[in-house]
Amino acid sequence: MNSIKDSVHDHIEVEGVAEELLDTPMVQRLRRIRQLGTAPFVYPSANHTRFEHSLGVYHLANQALSHLGIDGRTAERVRAAALLHDTGHGPYSHNLESLIYRHTGRYHDEIHDLLDTGEVAVVLERHGLDPERVADLVRGDGRYGQLVSGELDVDRMDYLVRDAHHTGVPYGTIDHGRLVRELRFLEGELVLAEGNVQTAESLLLARALMNPTVYNHHVARISKAMLRRGTERLLRAGATDAGELRRMDDRDLTVALRSCSETAEYARRLDTRNLYKRAVWAELDAVGDDLLAADHATIRNLEADVAEAAGVEPEHVVLDIPGRPSIPESTSRVVVNGDVRRLRDQSTLVQAVLRVQRDQWRLGAYAPADATEQVGHAAERILGLDLDALVSDIRVERTATLDEFSED
Amino acid sequence: MNSIKDSVHDHIEVEGVAEELLDTPMVQRLRRIRQLGTAPFVYPSANHTRFEHSLGVYHLANQALSHLGIDGRTAERVRAAALLHDTGHGPYSHNLESLIYRHTGRYHDEIHDLLDTGEVAVVLERHGLDPERVADLVRGDGRYGQLVSGELDVDRMDYLVRDAHHTGVPYGTIDHGRLVRELRFLEGELVLAEGNVQTAESLLLARALMNPTVYNHHVARISKAMLRRGTERLLRAGATDAGELRRMDDRDLTVALRSCSETAEYARRLDTRNLYKRAVWAELDAVGDDLLAADHATIRNLEADVAEAAGVEPEHVVLDIPGRPSIPESTSRVVVNGDVRRLRDQSTLVQAVLRVQRDQWRLGAYAPADATEQVGHAAERILGLDLDALVSDIRVERTATLDEFSED
Amino acid sequence: MNSIKDSVHDHIEVEGVAEELLDTPMVQRLRRIRQLGTAPFVYPSANHTRFEHSLGVYHLANQALSHLGIDGRTAERVRAAALLHDTGHGPYSHNLESLIYRHTGRYHDEIHDLLDTGEVAVVLERHGLDPERVADLVRGDGRYGQLVSGELDVDRMDYLVRDAHHTGVPYGTIDHGRLVRELRFLEGELVLAEGNVQTAESLLLARALMNPTVYNHHVARISKAMLRRGTERLLRAGATDAGELRRMDDRDLTVALRSCSETAEYARRLDTRNLYKRAVWAELDAVGDDLLAADHATIRNLEADVAEAAGVEPEHVVLDIPGRPSIPESTSRVVVNGDVRRLRDQSTLVQAVLRVQRDQWRLGAYAPADATEQVGHAAERILGLDLDALVSDIRVERTATLDEFSED
Amino acid sequence: MNSIKDSVHDHIEVEGVAEELLDTPMVQRLRRIRQLGTAPFVYPSANHTRFEHSLGVYHLANQALSHLGIDGRTAERVRAAALLHDTGHGPYSHNLESLIYRHTGRYHDEIHDLLDTGEVAVVLERHGLDPERVADLVRGDGRYGQLVSGELDVDRMDYLVRDAHHTGVPYGTIDHGRLVRELRFLEGELVLAEGNVQTAESLLLARALMNPTVYNHHVARISKAMLRRGTERLLRAGATDAGELRRMDDRDLTVALRSCSETAEYARRLDTRNLYKRAVWAELDAVGDDLLAADHATIRNLEADVAEAAGVEPEHVVLDIPGRPSIPESTSRVVVNGDVRRLRDQSTLVQAVLRVQRDQWRLGAYAPADATEQVGHAAERILGLDLDALVSDIRVERTATLDEFSED
Repeated sequence: MNSIKDSVHDHIEVEGVAEELLDTPMVQRLRRIRQLGTAPFVYPSANHTRFEHSLGVYHLANQALSHLGIDGRTAERVRAAALLHDTGHGPYSHNLESLIYRHTGRYHDEIHDLLDTGEVAVVLERHGLDPERVADLVRGDGRYGQLVSGELDVDRMDYLVRDAHHTGVPYGTIDHGRLVRELRFLEGELVLAEGNVQTAESLLLARALMNPTVYNHHVARISKAMLRRGTERLLRAGATDAGELRRMDDRDLTVALRSCSETAEYARRLDTRNLYKRAVWAELDAVGDDLLAADHATIRNLEADVAEAAGVEPEHVVLDIPGRPSIPESTSRVVVNGDVRRLRDQSTLVQAVLRVQRDQWRLGAYAPADATEQVGHAAERILGLDLDALVSDIRVERTATLDEFSED
Repeated sequence: MNSIKDSVHDHIEVEGVAEELLDTPMVQRLRRIRQLGTAPFVYPSANHTRFEHSLGVYHLANQALSHLGIDGRTAERVRAAALLHDTGHGPYSHNLESLIYRHTGRYHDEIHDLLDTGEVAVVLERHGLDPERVADLVRGDGRYGQLVSGELDVDRMDYLVRDAHHTGVPYGTIDHGRLVRELRFLEGELVLAEGNVQTAESLLLARALMNPTVYNHHVARISKAMLRRGTERLLRAGATDAGELRRMDDRDLTVALRSCSETAEYARRLDTRNLYKRAVWAELDAVGDDLLAADHATIRNLEADVAEAAGVEPEHVVLDIPGRPSIPESTSRVVVNGDVRRLRDQSTLVQAVLRVQRDQWRLGAYAPADATEQVGHAAERILGLDLDALVSDIRVERTATLDEFSED
Repeated sequence: MNSIKDSVHDHIEVEGVAEELLDTPMVQRLRRIRQLGTAPFVYPSANHTRFEHSLGVYHLANQALSHLGIDGRTAERVRAAALLHDTGHGPYSHNLESLIYRHTGRYHDEIHDLLDTGEVAVVLERHGLDPERVADLVRGDGRYGQLVSGELDVDRMDYLVRDAHHTGVPYGTIDHGRLVRELRFLEGELVLAEGNVQTAESLLLARALMNPTVYNHHVARISKAMLRRGTERLLRAGATDAGELRRMDDRDLTVALRSCSETAEYARRLDTRNLYKRAVWAELDAVGDDLLAADHATIRNLEADVAEAAGVEPEHVVLDIPGRPSIPESTSRVVVNGDVRRLRDQSTLVQAVLRVQRDQWRLGAYAPADATEQVGHAAERILGLDLDALVSDIRVERTATLDEFSED
Repeated sequence: MNSIKDSVHDHIEVEGVAEELLDTPMVQRLRRIRQLGTAPFVYPSANHTRFEHSLGVYHLANQALSHLGIDGRTAERVRAAALLHDTGHGPYSHNLESLIYRHTGRYHDEIHDLLDTGEVAVVLERHGLDPERVADLVRGDGRYGQLVSGELDVDRMDYLVRDAHHTGVPYGTIDHGRLVRELRFLEGELVLAEGNVQTAESLLLARALMNPTVYNHHVARISKAMLRRGTERLLRAGATDAGELRRMDDRDLTVALRSCSETAEYARRLDTRNLYKRAVWAELDAVGDDLLAADHATIRNLEADVAEAAGVEPEHVVLDIPGRPSIPESTSRVVVNGDVRRLRDQSTLVQAVLRVQRDQWRLGAYAPADATEQVGHAAERILGLDLDALVSDIRVERTATLDEFSED
């Protein structure tokens, strides 16, 4: 048994299949993928990686299994899945997911292929574990998959606490000790025991507060959009392909962007934090349904149109249209007076939080600092934004949340 | 200048009028009044006092003044008020407020009398400060009174963080550094600067989560009700009077309760944590409007009636009927697109939190463990509780939040 | 099983005999005895109690037992001893130990009597545990007694971390997780496993840094000496006796001191932090061997002589002569290359720390602020202090460590 | 003015020249250089960078300046130097310093060249600051240079606390608030004010505890030695030159090592944490003076000889011979009874710590896991190690401090 020191959970004890999996290249690679992608542009100390997060998820899974009285091979399988759950991530964590998906036709759940080959498969089999079944757990399938990937999974518990610790933003500070202790299986469903409506709500609220402050901070969004755009050009330039990209770590991608003449400018801007600024920052009500439903090709065309209308380089307009807000935690289950209920049916807060997410939703159009005026005007017209619904008459909301270096 | 080490804010530098006020008996007395009254029955490490809280409030006030660019005598007055804001508290902080108020005919805002006499007045006047004006600030009057007592006051910021630190409950962890930096005066009103709707919401949510977990935890409520009842008997027995009671510290009261034969049993129960249990724990919908509006005398009569019907000692029934839920933070002001708005008009969360508070509201009837059954039945009938609205058919909700020692 | 929230160890799970012991009056009394006696006069947030410390010691004992693979009745006995180890303390923890000892002829190890009677004995016997053997463990006897009271005991680990947490002084932050994991039994001795010389040193250094900063801070020493003196007068006045005193809590003693006319002045001074100041603060080299070996009666006579020579009230001179410095941790055992060795034979630091403790040793003579000059001169002469060995020519070292309110 | 959230110091306010310097490529580059080089191989969460450390040093410098009453241009110069003090670092922080120095003939104090050109110079001059004088401060020259680089510099204070926070090792937890407050200038020297011998000692002890646990952990040393060796081959292969290397960030170097066929094996081993192991781990007494004084060429020859004698590839032997132990903090100055004294003349601990450092000193010879036996024997003979002085008869001390994954 080994003990690894973690800045969040102190000592994490690793043994069995997990100890061997740690040494595989696939898991070691996670040391070079930062947990929050471009978020360090806003929170400079948020340089934690998927590796330590994976250890944390393994640790909480272990505690949950012990409280639930689950052991033997089932438990080993869950532990393996907890440690491996992020191995499918490309560089910069979630930042490039949609891009990789579009280019490979597959989502980050190509996890079955990953675990079925190479050293990981060898280790799993040596411990009598079927890689397929471990991959199922990573995808959240089956009774125990809920522990790894579901509304009440230990992944969520670790990242909220860890992201709070490393950003310095106090809002993610949930009581993970209590959450893990109160998990139960009832009729095959993972639920929180009686008396925990508020515990479930606290999980929901933690994410609701972390979303605008950290995960969707506009500087994180802008840099992410620029990274995505640069990476897309890298693919178009033939400097890499989607299969190779998916297996890169943050370092490979950074250097690849610098080395390719067509993306060097993006790399230079990211390296020096010389980011685009918001030309438009529009609320949900200002955005037509067509625009919300637009596919990737349509958006690229719109960007080109806006650039042309604004008289700027095509590369100097980036549209960033998030999906409609949703709250996965709203379906988490809690026991109330003996019955299992969905949190959304039990908690008045769920609807409120959904509305808040809606209020906080923003379409962004980004451009170099000296082009935001033209691009803003052009985007407004071409995207058919409802002027009156814009949060301010200058197309860009001036109400930035915490800014590093006051970059609007 | 002096520097005092604080477990929450690290070094607190004290100078000027504050340094001298610290040495007055009135402020030193706060060392012996615990911040959370009977809450250590639930959270054993929550033994922090009004003294360190007062230092913390002074510290945050100081930071806010510096960010707001306020100095000179105005600032000294605010600093003095911050340090003195809790000197009016009786023993066990808020636990006995209503009792003392009823018996003295005055609320804890007899602050003017307090500051006008004794060493505090001497110190204030030596520094050219008018005790009356300092007392006004403590009451929240005037432009700068909002900093000391208002929806966005530094009192709230300190206690949320401090109570979280000492209970170990992570929910109060607001970003007080940001809150203090973002305060502004606009047309005489204390507001949060542009871009801080969410900062204001986080303050609201922190309290919404701390309320049921800490401040209104049923064990804290039961012990508080027992303490109140015992103290009332102490007054009736003539062992003390309201004026003297108001100036006691926690130690005086504990020993007084032990020494008086009519209250010794309460003292013994509190000393050994042998608390009453819930006989009834009823939701707002189960409670008639009359009962909600009942005055103190009516409630005492109802208790007597319930005791008689249940065949138990009058002392063995305690009714605990909180006021209707409210959210002071809902009126805090935030700048949105240049206009000052009330949080409740801006945030979808305010209404939801109000509803949650309503859902969490409970009328309690408490009795010794072996009498809850009879007392429950009797209370149900005599209080005219709507059976169907009770959260469970056994009159006592079984969904306790975190219990120390599983005492329902 | 119950879970109690602790600000240091987060959730502490309590079950078995410990769960029942918690509810006994003897353990509940510890809620009203502060861990650090008068130290809150220096560190206002250090209001933690022996109760939460006892829970913490129980928690660490539990972890150590689990790592050591000890279970069954032996483990239950150790857990009981861990929870009960401080029940013998009088009010203000260690502050009055020597006084009580002198008056009862017994040290705080009257633990056997305590555990042999009352509810604690009933609970222990109900769980098949012999109170005598539990008391032996509290005294550190036998193989497993080392876990509860010895050079490597969990008591020390909890108090260093807890005192650091509550004072805000960072020096006590040992790696208790590692310490607990590395404990082993070798030939009946509790030792630290191979590779832990430095772990043992860190424990030693933590206490070496906490000593002058917290435990022996001169303001803590002065207030402790005043409390001791006041309590002695209380006994002399017949207001209480040593047997009763020993069973008081902090509140009883505070009120007793206030109520007795002969001690009211001490009570008033302590209540308002109007403490004596240092008239003499002399190094070990300045102090003759006779003085170091003086018994209580001799010291009282010297105080009287000094007071007379200085022309002040007898009550206005307090002599405070600590024992010679020692380091219990120096005998802790560590495995080095397969052999068990004493830390002092292995670590160069032990001798250095012992010398540092010697350098930091001070004899104190205290008097009211306006009498320090006369008392200083008189004490110097009557105690035969070596003038040249005094740290400064004004008899009082001006090099105070962190002072609250700059009280020299 | 801007406010940046930091996980260690919470909000760091940046204004003036510092605000503009932050945006320069030279400072932004520090985001991609990890503070502790290869230490994350031991402490997975220690991924913090020179960027946030530089912000922290700026922050503490700012506080120190304010306490010292220094403002105006002098203060701006110190602030600039604090923020820029690490811009001279190559990739992997200190890990490659000696290598770069050997190849460029210059140490990391080519700081004058760096600050004299490019955007940094432009910014400094725009604020009326002479780059030369700022560079002098970075080198620790002059009165105020001591604040930036000296025995009591704020660099040290930030890194101890920050490294402790991110590794999870509690030993670096100094009281930086107190240290910064107690700094004084006396006759041109930076000293700690009266009463701070122990404060100075705590700084010394913090580093003494962090050294073996973190900075010199054998796994950190092995990986560092492998990185250095790989980088040296990279230079020899002509894949880069020392000037270019010096300006790389961690990402460039990682990818460069992967891309060059002669270093790909090192890259692969580092990427997968498949590190060499200790073949020899010898104490200072076992090592001859010649060996201690050996220059780089001699060491390379010895490695080749050992490899030949052991019958392994030349690349498979790495010798790691640290310099003789020293304690920079021993010369820090403290005021004692009005005189300025060196800590080493005042504190008994300094000599003890020096001896401890000597005891902890180890020469290492590293080789792939399957070659440690042969390499150990060969190294012992060829290096002329004194067998009896080896800590164990197997040439490798088995007393590893905290190991991640138990890699000896």
